[in-house]
Formats: sequence, C-alpha cells, structure tokens
Amino acid sequence: MITNLLFRYHQIRLQSELICEPLEPEDYVVQPIVDVSPPKWHLGHTTWFFEQMLLVPFMPDYKLFHPEYNYVFNSYYETVGNRVLRTNRGNLSKPSVVDIYSYRKYVDKCMKDFIENINLSTELLNIIEIGLQHEQQHQELLYYDIKYILGNNPLFPKYREESNNKNLSSATPLGFLDVSEGIYKVGHNSDGFCFDNEKGHHSVFLHDYIIGDRLITNAEFLEFIQDGGYQDFRHWYSEAWEWVKTNDKKAPFHWHNMDGVWYNYTMHGLKKVNLDTPVAHVSQFEAAAFAKWKGMRLPTEFEWEVACGIHQPSIPVSANLSDMDTFEPIQPTEGNYQFYGDLWEWTSSAYTAYPYYEAPEGALGEYNGKFMTNQMVLKGGSYATPRNHIRPTYRNFFHPHLNWQFTGIRLAKHV
Amino acid sequence: MITNLLFRYHQIRLQSELICEPLEPEDYVVQPIVDVSPPKWHLGHTTWFFEQMLLVPFMPDYKLFHPEYNYVFNSYYETVGNRVLRTNRGNLSKPSVVDIYSYRKYVDKCMKDFIENINLSTELLNIIEIGLQHEQQHQELLYYDIKYILGNNPLFPKYREESNNKNLSSATPLGFLDVSEGIYKVGHNSDGFCFDNEKGHHSVFLHDYIIGDRLITNAEFLEFIQDGGYQDFRHWYSEAWEWVKTNDKKAPFHWHNMDGVWYNYTMHGLKKVNLDTPVAHVSQFEAAAFAKWKGMRLPTEFEWEVACGIHQPSIPVSANLSDMDTFEPIQPTEGNYQFYGDLWEWTSSAYTAYPYYEAPEGALGEYNGKFMTNQMVLKGGSYATPRNHIRPTYRNFFHPHLNWQFTGIRLAKHV
Amino acid sequence: MITNLLFRYHQIRLQSELICEPLEPEDYVVQPIVDVSPPKWHLGHTTWFFEQMLLVPFMPDYKLFHPEYNYVFNSYYETVGNRVLRTNRGNLSKPSVVDIYSYRKYVDKCMKDFIENINLSTELLNIIEIGLQHEQQHQELLYYDIKYILGNNPLFPKYREESNNKNLSSATPLGFLDVSEGIYKVGHNSDGFCFDNEKGHHSVFLHDYIIGDRLITNAEFLEFIQDGGYQDFRHWYSEAWEWVKTNDKKAPFHWHNMDGVWYNYTMHGLKKVNLDTPVAHVSQFEAAAFAKWKGMRLPTEFEWEVACGIHQPSIPVSANLSDMDTFEPIQPTEGNYQFYGDLWEWTSSAYTAYPYYEAPEGALGEYNGKFMTNQMVLKGGSYATPRNHIRPTYRNFFHPHLNWQFTGIRLAKHV
Amino acid sequence: MITNLLFRYHQIRLQSELICEPLEPEDYVVQPIVDVSPPKWHLGHTTWFFEQMLLVPFMPDYKLFHPEYNYVFNSYYETVGNRVLRTNRGNLSKPSVVDIYSYRKYVDKCMKDFIENINLSTELLNIIEIGLQHEQQHQELLYYDIKYILGNNPLFPKYREESNNKNLSSATPLGFLDVSEGIYKVGHNSDGFCFDNEKGHHSVFLHDYIIGDRLITNAEFLEFIQDGGYQDFRHWYSEAWEWVKTNDKKAPFHWHNMDGVWYNYTMHGLKKVNLDTPVAHVSQFEAAAFAKWKGMRLPTEFEWEVACGIHQPSIPVSANLSDMDTFEPIQPTEGNYQFYGDLWEWTSSAYTAYPYYEAPEGALGEYNGKFMTNQMVLKGGSYATPRNHIRPTYRNFFHPHLNWQFTGIRLAKHV
Repeated sequence: MITNLLFRYHQIRLQSELICEPLEPEDYVVQPIVDVSPPKWHLGHTTWFFEQMLLVPFMPDYKLFHPEYNYVFNSYYETVGNRVLRTNRGNLSKPSVVDIYSYRKYVDKCMKDFIENINLSTELLNIIEIGLQHEQQHQELLYYDIKYILGNNPLFPKYREESNNKNLSSATPLGFLDVSEGIYKVGHNSDGFCFDNEKGHHSVFLHDYIIGDRLITNAEFLEFIQDGGYQDFRHWYSEAWEWVKTNDKKAPFHWHNMDGVWYNYTMHGLKKVNLDTPVAHVSQFEAAAFAKWKGMRLPTEFEWEVACGIHQPSIPVSANLSDMDTFEPIQPTEGNYQFYGDLWEWTSSAYTAYPYYEAPEGALGEYNGKFMTNQMVLKGGSYATPRNHIRPTYRNFFHPHLNWQFTGIRLAKHV
Repeated sequence: MITNLLFRYHQIRLQSELICEPLEPEDYVVQPIVDVSPPKWHLGHTTWFFEQMLLVPFMPDYKLFHPEYNYVFNSYYETVGNRVLRTNRGNLSKPSVVDIYSYRKYVDKCMKDFIENINLSTELLNIIEIGLQHEQQHQELLYYDIKYILGNNPLFPKYREESNNKNLSSATPLGFLDVSEGIYKVGHNSDGFCFDNEKGHHSVFLHDYIIGDRLITNAEFLEFIQDGGYQDFRHWYSEAWEWVKTNDKKAPFHWHNMDGVWYNYTMHGLKKVNLDTPVAHVSQFEAAAFAKWKGMRLPTEFEWEVACGIHQPSIPVSANLSDMDTFEPIQPTEGNYQFYGDLWEWTSSAYTAYPYYEAPEGALGEYNGKFMTNQMVLKGGSYATPRNHIRPTYRNFFHPHLNWQFTGIRLAKHV
Repeated sequence: MITNLLFRYHQIRLQSELICEPLEPEDYVVQPIVDVSPPKWHLGHTTWFFEQMLLVPFMPDYKLFHPEYNYVFNSYYETVGNRVLRTNRGNLSKPSVVDIYSYRKYVDKCMKDFIENINLSTELLNIIEIGLQHEQQHQELLYYDIKYILGNNPLFPKYREESNNKNLSSATPLGFLDVSEGIYKVGHNSDGFCFDNEKGHHSVFLHDYIIGDRLITNAEFLEFIQDGGYQDFRHWYSEAWEWVKTNDKKAPFHWHNMDGVWYNYTMHGLKKVNLDTPVAHVSQFEAAAFAKWKGMRLPTEFEWEVACGIHQPSIPVSANLSDMDTFEPIQPTEGNYQFYGDLWEWTSSAYTAYPYYEAPEGALGEYNGKFMTNQMVLKGGSYATPRNHIRPTYRNFFHPHLNWQFTGIRLAKHV
Repeated sequence: MITNLLFRYHQIRLQSELICEPLEPEDYVVQPIVDVSPPKWHLGHTTWFFEQMLLVPFMPDYKLFHPEYNYVFNSYYETVGNRVLRTNRGNLSKPSVVDIYSYRKYVDKCMKDFIENINLSTELLNIIEIGLQHEQQHQELLYYDIKYILGNNPLFPKYREESNNKNLSSATPLGFLDVSEGIYKVGHNSDGFCFDNEKGHHSVFLHDYIIGDRLITNAEFLEFIQDGGYQDFRHWYSEAWEWVKTNDKKAPFHWHNMDGVWYNYTMHGLKKVNLDTPVAHVSQFEAAAFAKWKGMRLPTEFEWEVACGIHQPSIPVSANLSDMDTFEPIQPTEGNYQFYGDLWEWTSSAYTAYPYYEAPEGALGEYNGKFMTNQMVLKGGSYATPRNHIRPTYRNFFHPHLNWQFTGIRLAKHV
C-alpha cells in the first residue's frame, strides 16, 4: 500500500519534470499574460503544496527548504503574513530553475520519509491525494503555458519534433445523439477520488435534446470565419462582441493568417491548419457564437454528463491532432469514455455550487469554492489531461473569454 | 380596445416624465459611471424605440423628428450606420432637455395617429407592448440613476421631501420556509405579457431546502460589518475579494460613515441607517459573502420562484424603507405576491437561456439574449418597479459587482 | 480709483457671464475629457477665488454663501480639509446653474461692499488684481471648453450665428524676419500687472535666427497631411508618434473628413476648412512635426519674445478666422503687437522657472510654480484672449499633446 | 590604427559579457517594468546594431545570423517591415542566452574581418565608433536593469559579494561654489567623440549662482523624509504629487523600511542605509522636491557644465557607496573631473535641441533627437558609467519620474 503510494507519488512528480524536459532555462521564466504562469513557478508551487500542507504541520522537526519560498510559491495570497512585496511571477528570475529542482528533490526526499515513517490517517492520505491531483492539474496547465510561451515567440520554436508515422483520417460526418426528457442523476457517486465541486450526487430534470457525436472540426469552424462570423455582432453576446472588437479577434488563438493561408502554432511548430481535426483554442465566447451561427447552442454541463453516460460515439479519439504525438494516446478503456478526451468542451453552464456543496475547512477550502463566480464549466478533458482526471463528473472551469487552454466545441439543441 | 391602449400608452409615457419632475435641467445630463445613463437619455431612448420600431417601418410618410437622433439615442450601437463618432452619453449637452420633451411630444402625437389609424396586427400590438414594457424598465433605471447622480453629489441634494406620517414598525424575527424536493414547473405560463427570457414553462428538479421569510435587515448586515466581514477574505469569492480591495469597500453603496455613525443616502437626503428596514444597495458579491458568513447561501432563481408560489410571508411589504414614500406602495393583490416587492433579490443563478429559448428575429432579438453571460438573475422587484412588472417569473439581471440598483438579500440552504 | 476698480470688477465679472449667454443649462454641465471643465464650474471657481482669498480672510463677519462650495469649487485640492469624496467635476449636477448665478451675485455684492468699505492695502489690491486676471484666464478657457463640448456633440450645434459681412483676404506669402546674435533682455519689466512666472527681467544670449512673419495657414498644413505627414514617423518625437498611433490622429483637432473633404468645427458650426487662415487646434507634437517636415523648427520662447519686440509683420491680424466674429477684433494698439494675437504659438521651450523665480507665499504660491514640469510655453495670445493679457512676456503653458486650445504654428531656424 | 580599433572593439564587447557574468540564465530574461530590458536583449540589441548598421549594408556577401533577429532586437520599431507581431521583450524566452552568445561570436568574427579587410572611410569609422559608444551606454543600462531585476526579487539576491577592505569616510559639510554672471561657452568643442546632442559649441548667458560642492547624502535626505517631505504637497510639482500619491512613495527606489529601520538594496544585497554616501535612486520629482524643501533648486544643465569647468570639489569621489566595489573606481585624471562621477545628477533643464542641432541622416538620426520632449537632462555620470563617457558636455536624459537609474541630487541657487 505504502509502496504503491510511494510509486505513484514518484511517478506523478517525475511526470511534471518530464513535461519540462524540452525546455531551456529561459523558457521556465516568462509570463506573457497574467493567466499564464512561468513553468518554474508550477514546479515550485506544486512542491510548496506538499511542504505547507503536510511537512510543515505534520512532520516532526521539519526544516523548511527556504524561509521565503512560502511567499514566492503561494498562490493563496490571502493567507500570506505580514511582508507584502508586490511583484509578479514573470518578473522573478530567482529562485533559479536549478534551485527549484533542488527544492523538489529536498521535498521529495522528505515526503518519502513522511510516507514511510508517519502513521498515515485517512485525513493525511486525503491531503496527499489532493496534492497529487493538484500536481496533475498543473501538469496540464504546464502544457497550456508552455504552448503559450513558445507560440507567442516570433521565432515559433518547437516544443518537440513531430514523429513521422502519423495516422491521419478524415472526420466523420457530424451526427447527433438523442436524449429523452426525465430525471437524471449527476455528480460524483463512486469510491474513487473526486474534487469537492463534483459532489454531491444529485438529481436534475432534463428536457429532450440532441447533442453532437463529435467535436466541431477546423473545416467547420473555417466556414464560420469565411462567412464573416467574426464580423457579425448578431452571433455574439454583447460582452463577447466587445471582446472581439477590443482584441481584433479574427480566428482561434494560435492561428496566424499568412498571405491568405491559415496556419496554427502546434507543439511541433507552425503548421497549416488541418481541416479534419477538432478546432482548438476557442473561448466560450467563440464556441457560443459558432453554435448560434449554426442555429444551435452549447450543451449544459448536465446534458453533457448524461449523454456521456449513455452513448458511444463512432469515431476514435484524438486520431489526428497536430499536437498529439507529444502526448500519450487516450486509451478507450470503457465504451462511454470514448465520448471525450480530445479537448475540454465548453458548456453553457456557469460554474456554481452543486446542491449540498460544502467547502472543506482551512486552506483546502479555498481550492474550488472561491472561484464559483463568472466562470463557465468545461467537461471531458483534453489530450494533455492526466488519464485519471478523465471522468464524466470532472468539472473544469475557466472564464468565458479565455482560449489558451485546449478547448473545443460540441453542439446541442432541444428538440 | 384602442382607447384602452391609447390610455395606457399615455399613462406610461406620462409616468416617465413625472419621475423626472423634481429634476433641474442639469440633473438630466450627467453620467457619473458607465452603468448610469443621464435621465435625458432615458427619456430620449424610450421615445426612439417607438420611432424606430414602429413609426419608421410601419407609418406611411413618417418624417423623422431629427435625422441624427437615431444615432444619439440608439443603445443598439451595432446596427448604427457608417458615421461613427466616439462619445459617451454623459458628454452630450445636446439635444437639450427641452428638445427631448419636444421629441417625446412629437412621437407621442404620431403614435396616437398610428394607434388610431393603422390596422394593428398582432405583431404590431406586440411591438407596442414591448415598447411600453421597455419604457417601464427604464422608469426603474431612472430611479437608480437619479439616486446615483444625487447621492454622488457632495451636497447630497434631496430628490423629494419626505412625508411626515411614516408608519414605522420593527422587523419580525427571521424565519424560514420549507420546500420539499421534487419536480416543479417554472417559467412563464399565462396569457399575460412576458419577456422572451421568461419562456418557456419548463420542469426543474429541486432538493429539499429552506428559504428566508423576509429580507435581511440593516441591523443584521451591520453585524456582518462589525464582525469584520469586509476584512476577511474567507467569506468572499476570489473575484469579489479583489473587488473589495480594489474599491476599498466597507459598506453597501450609498452608505457613509461619519464620525463612527452609519448614514445612508436616501431619496430624501442623508439619513441615519434604519436598523429595521431591509439592507439595500448590495452587490451580489456582498450578498453572497453575507450568506457565507451566516453559514447559508443565496437561493437559486428556481428555489425563489417555487417558494414564491407556495408561501405567504408574515410581514407587510415595504413598511418602512426610507425611500418609500417617494413611490406608490405595493398593494398585496394576491397572497403570494407579498413574498417580494421590496428590493430585487440576488440569486445564485447565472443568467442563461431557459430550455427552448429562442431570441426573436431582428432588432428585438437583441433585447435579452445577448446579455446571457457573466450576469446574475435577480427576482422579485423593488419598490421602484412598475406594478405590472412584479411577477414570479420575471428575470432581472445584472453583473454581480453592481450595487447602485435597489437590491437586497434573502437567505436559503439545503436541509 | 475705487470707482475704477469697481467698474473693472463689474466689467470682467460680466464678461464671463456674457460668454455663457448662448448656452442652455445642459451645456454648463458636461466634461467630455479631463482637461475640459464644465462651464458652470468655471463660473463658480472664479467666484470661489474672491470668496476664499478675500472675503473669508479679510471681510469682517463674512457669511459663506454655502459651506460646501469651498469643496466643490476648489481646484487646489491639496488644501482641502478632512472630508474627501472622490468625484469629478462633470458628474455634478448640483449646484445648479441658477444656484451658481446666485452665488456670483452674492459674492459680487459682498465684493462691492468690500471694495467700498475696506481700507485696501497694496496686498489686498494685488489679490483683487490676481482674482480679476484669474477670471480672465478662465474666460479664455471657457471658450476652449465650450467649443470642445459643442464640437464633440454629433449634432455639431452652433455657439452663435455667423455674421454675414466677413472681410476675407488671402494669406500673404510666408516671409521670415532676421534677428542677430547677442544678449537680449527678456521677462517682465514694467509697472503693469504680470504673473509671477514672467519675472524677473533677465538676460539671455541668442544666436542668429530667422522667424516666420506670420502663422502657418491651413493650406500649408494640408500639404503636410497630403504628403503623408501623419503616417511618417521620421517627423515626430518618439512620444508624439505613440500619440499619433494611439489616437489614430490624421488632422488637427475639430477637423472632420467627410467624403474626402476636410471640414472643421467652428463656433458657427461645421465649415469647410478655409485655406487662407492660420491652422488652429494643433498640439505641440503636431507643430514640431510640421516644422521638422519643413526643415525648420519652432522658436524658443526667448526667440519669440525678442522678435516680437523688434518687428512688425505685414499682415493684419485675424482677418478671416472662421471663429472670429464671435470675438472682438484685436486692435493693433502698438506696432509690435501686430506680431501676434491670432492663436497661441507653440514654442520649443519647456515651461520652467526664470532665474530668481520665487513662488509667492500661501495658496497664491500654487498658482504657477507647481506646473513647471512636462509642459511647454506658448506665446502671444489668441483671438479669445482678453485684451490686457496680450503682452510679449506672458507665458501660457500646456502639455505638448493637447490641442483643444486655440493654438497655432510659427516657424524658426538658426542661420 | 586598425589594431587599436580591433583591440578597443574587443575590449568593449567583452565588457558587456563580463557585466553579465554573475547572472544565471533566468536573470537574463525578465522585464519587471517597461523601462527595464532583459539583459539578454541588451546583449542582442548591441550586436544587432553592428550587424544592421555595418555588416548588412557594407560587407559584401554578408549572411545574416538569423533572419528574424532584425525583428527581435530592433529597438527602432518604426523601420520594421511588414510583419508585426505584438509582444514584449520580457515575454520572449527565445533566442536563448546561448543563442545570443553565439550571435555575438558570429558578429564579432565578421566585424573582425570587416575591420581588417574593408577600406574604412571616415563614415564607416564613425558608425563603428557610434556602435561602440552605443554598447557602452547599454553597459550602464545593464547595471540599472540587473539591479532592478535582483532588487525587485523578494529573495534580494546579491549581484556579487562585497569586498572587505572598504575605506569608509564621513561626508564633508556641504559647501557651495560661486559662479559669476556672464556669457559662457557650453557644448562640445574638442576632437574627441561626442553624440549629436552635445553639439554645437554655443554661448549662454548665466546670472550669478551658487552650486553645491558635493551631492546630497542619505543623512540629508532622511531629514526630508522625517520632516514629512513625502506627505507635504507644497514641495512637489502638481504632477509629481500625483506620482507620489498614486505610487504611495515614501522613500527613494530600492529603499525598504523594516521595523522602522531603512535598508536599501545594493549590488551586494540588502544593507542598512549608509548615512554618509550620496542619496541614489531618486527621481527628478524627488530631487526637485528636496531642493524646494531646502529653499533651493536644481541647477540648469548649463550652470552645472560651467561650474564643472571651473571648480574642484574637496571630497574624493565615490569613496563609500555601497555598490561601489562592484565597479572600477573613478580615477581623477583632471582636477575638474572630480566634480562628478558618483551619480547622474538631475538638472532643471528639459532635454531639447541645442542651437544649430541637426539630426544625422538615416537610422542614426533616430538616436537622440526623437527623444527631445518630456525628458530632463542629467549630467556627470555614475560609478557605473564607462570611463570615456564621463565628460562635462555629455547629456544624459530620462523622464522626471524615473528612479531606477543611478541618480543623485546637487543643489543650486541664484544669489
């Protein structure tokens, strides 16, 4: 049991470092927009979590690696003590990457001692689990942020070389699945791990609806662009239209029009947009505008979750995304899991508390609940999502204007 | 029938002008924040609606009052033609108040001709109805904006003198109503007028919950302030906390602490805060923080609507609000209507489309649907709300940080 | 003597009100940009000066017109007491225009008593004089601000009707006056009134230079526009170029291109640009860019002042400016005064202290000295300048990017 | 001759790299404020200058190191071609530090060939000289920026260890030098190199004045702080006062008050403020406010330059600055040079063109002239200034609110 836990701890901690392996030290440092964090901050912050949530309170005689790191790597600024220096993550060249890797080694060694020598109560096991899940969440953010940092660079450096043996296939015609009205159960209801925001298991009433059997492709989204979708206010929410105009939006994030041809930045550099793959890097504003233009809408989070539990789509997952061979392929372990996993799918649901939701006590209580305003739920998971985060009840959330994440579009409609 | 319509048209149009009757010309002009519109703009914009939606398209040989007014009074900027001058409503001294009253008279005369002489199809009757409802919505906004304009002035001018014969009563102890889990019908389901966003009548599943039998009072909110509620991040959403710090919030809007005593600006000038009346001018951020501090939460819009259809509260409505004698008292015409009508009640529901929602064609389609992002639903209605807008299905909506409206707090909880 | 002073006081106070005579109440209120003040604020602030600088400290038993007006009309915010409400001039509908005229009448009556009954020391006479000069400065600002307020309105309302009997003449060919190198005396050196910043009379050494015998005309400035002057960074200071791009500048302020024809807003409404009149409403950035494009430069304030004392230009002043018949014509009382008076002329001199400059004690010390950073000197005076402010030593000053004032361009060069 | 040039080229190019020697790769990347550039950008930009100004136009068959570097390292954005990607220097992790050192090596090798094999005309020699002077200017900026980057870090890392054998001495009492009124010659007038903005040699008339014989010390500046200097608006320009309030300024940049004790960040880490050394890291706003509080003023650039040519101060230069042993000591080669060299000294002179100033043709013309607005002249040079840039006519310039440079205060006054 402890061996398993140690092994899992080791695997997950290693995975964060493997993600950063192609980076040079300079790539670890920059923060081009406020939503992106420098890779070295992710590596430090996930380590800080184990140090502050476990070693400091529960490990006898634990000696801090560095007294200022609590300040530097704390994203929960509210609980910081008396010394307040205003700064931004992207302006900090220290701690250096080498220092942060030393920090990781030090904490990992102490965590090994901790796991081996401390009598682990359920509470402690739970905090360790959250620390591991937390690190996995940051692994996906690492991919987003690295892609932003490199794709924002005028030299368009590659994250990794592309493999040659790609198996490209055409997109299937878009079909729709039917779901009948009734009371459905949603929310987490198993022994496995879940975050507080997935609880509790509860009933919702849904009306008849149809939902797409696959994500919208680049070819389909290009039709929207070519039909003047970004120039016609009628497709957009009022705030979305302001966003389009203020930012002079003309295409998804990472897209560049060069001499009339659309390219997009991928983990393997700048490539011509592949018409058959799902359109990625759209904001919820763009997803909703596309849906409106199509005479449809985005599904609610419950419509998505219910459909996911019922249907098996006809296409293999992630067959030919440009970024894909950077990541491990998604294995369809159960039929209904094939429904998703390519890209996080925007829903029309605002991110709010489920019935009976209770935030945990203490610092862990800040994990999810305090973000339950002005954000939208995304379902499914992307090719960059750690495998064990892929479950129908998982609730990802982002502001509707953001699009540097790996996001996509699925259509729905009442019938 | 036409006589009735003409009479109603006349009554509603007159009401807008009566609201402005205490104003001097200067009060019609200013725009202290972007959310507030100058009173003269409201008077012009509601008139523009009748001109552009009815007279221009459907009245033969209609002659515009002024060719530029379409530009000046159009809040639907997207449909404006080729001439784009960037300006703000509060920077326009012309058209003068006198000109705008002339514009109103001109359009009113033409509308009289129109109603009397045109064969009114259902479609035309519907547009007239929306024009009247639209004007009534702006009547309430007029109150908000006038109160902002005067309350923002260092001289704290009164809108109107206070009457003397006030009937003050103490607040009743806060009780809670029980609602049992089950499928409930919500949304509009009668022959009466409703806005597109109240349709359609549909089913929702609710879990057991309790909901307050009255709004939170100033006395109760003062306890939150005195307990350091505005200084403790744990009660607030992350964005709400940013809002508190950035704006240095310490109390509801229109409140001023003078030498340790809390005053609030009312339509009758600056007054000591009345402990027994409902707390007003809170943002949804403040309402949610208060609820969290109380160990409860805000109701969803459906919980509110269902409770409203079942229960009758024990206290008379609006007995002793400071602003009240400026407005007509709310008449409890039916039992369940007594549930609300003091202040718009913040819910925890984001403002999104109901199942089967369809925006109307053309310019009217921009009325509600395009705002269905990043805003929260408010239910009930305030003492400034036109009487026929008070119905359980009405969905008001504002951004969660706004608090110049007449808003209040009702608590709820699952049990 | 006292009769003269009273008469002058009366004349100057009346003049401010005459300037506002064409306005409707709404025009007195708005503040479209931060640099513009509402006309009613000017009327109140100039009155406040007499109340606070003379009546309050020196008039026995003086009773304030209103206790809050010190706060409302004080532009010297630093000396304000303990009550700080953040607001902006353009957001205040009260005091009303009627109240402000009452305030003026009240203070004027008290000032009459004051002048007639108090033994006026030199110090008091000096403060009265500054109060009158101050009011005259605001008279010119009133013209700028009224023109901004009306010209910013999409209806382009006229300030006043244009007279018919205009005497238009062509611009003379641009000639240049020679000045030889040597030590020259500059600064104020007479018994007449001057502001602190014009003292002391001091020596400067100038090298040989030539200076234009008239201002640059609209025709000449149009050549700059048509030559792509606003599109070529080489003519502009680095900051000026940022200003051009950020504000998408393509022509002087108040100019509008309609279907390929240049119009400019004048006090008599929108007119085709008159090619023979001096170009007005240019920022110093535009003036300097034009000069660089011409292979010349702007004169220093000393070059301007010295040239002004030596030469008499060949053209009559202000013969045919569009705005002109709104104002009294400039009478050439002395030969060298003909050199200027059309428009304030930008110089290449930053506004800094003259040798031996000393700011007066107390609140009057804030009058000029505290603005001696980041602003540029303008010389001459415009057609809107009160006649007794037109003198060679007068130092007007504005930030180099501003162009809502009545400004023009004169060229110079070392030879 | 060529050997000398090659040697000098080598020495200067090496010096830039030596300055960066204590840095780790991460330190090369960040840009905490817009005025600071990442060290790697300085290294690339100075190299780009040689490539674009010499190798590309004058070296036959020169092959660019990388086609995109012209875009990445060009600070003269106006001449950039058709591809415009909006980004900021601090957001670019590529080119990596290693790549930039390769770029430097490549260009250095080509420049060696160029100098050895090309017939160097006066024009080419002049461009090489400007390239070297340009690199030396960036060497000083490197120190400013590195100090900002490290001093902004909550860990306060040291740039370099402090040596032990410090020779500390007390400050001498502040004395004043007298200069009599008359015509003086200023501006560059020798065979040595100078920048275009130092020309031409010209006459100015100065009135009698006194000028401090040394810079203001930390002890003297602390008196200003303790006397409430940062809280009293009367010492400050109006814009300076806004700056104080907006930025909550309470002390010079790099100062930190910890439990009532003032520390400042030095190149050797955080240290208690040394009372005897010149106060550094003040903006011109702070320098002018201090002078006003003292009843004096800052000298003009001409007063400074004339005094520098006449007097020899009594104290040794740079005896005990905390940062000093990071830099080579200033050698007093001529008597009057001892007047300065500790810190750049703010003057009261705006940075404008000297008489007969002509910007060079082409890209070099953008070097100085385009900045001649809204900036102030600094004279002297700091301990970080390359030795051959220390001359009385050198005109440094910065905006008056900036204080991350090595700046100090010298007082003056007319008598």
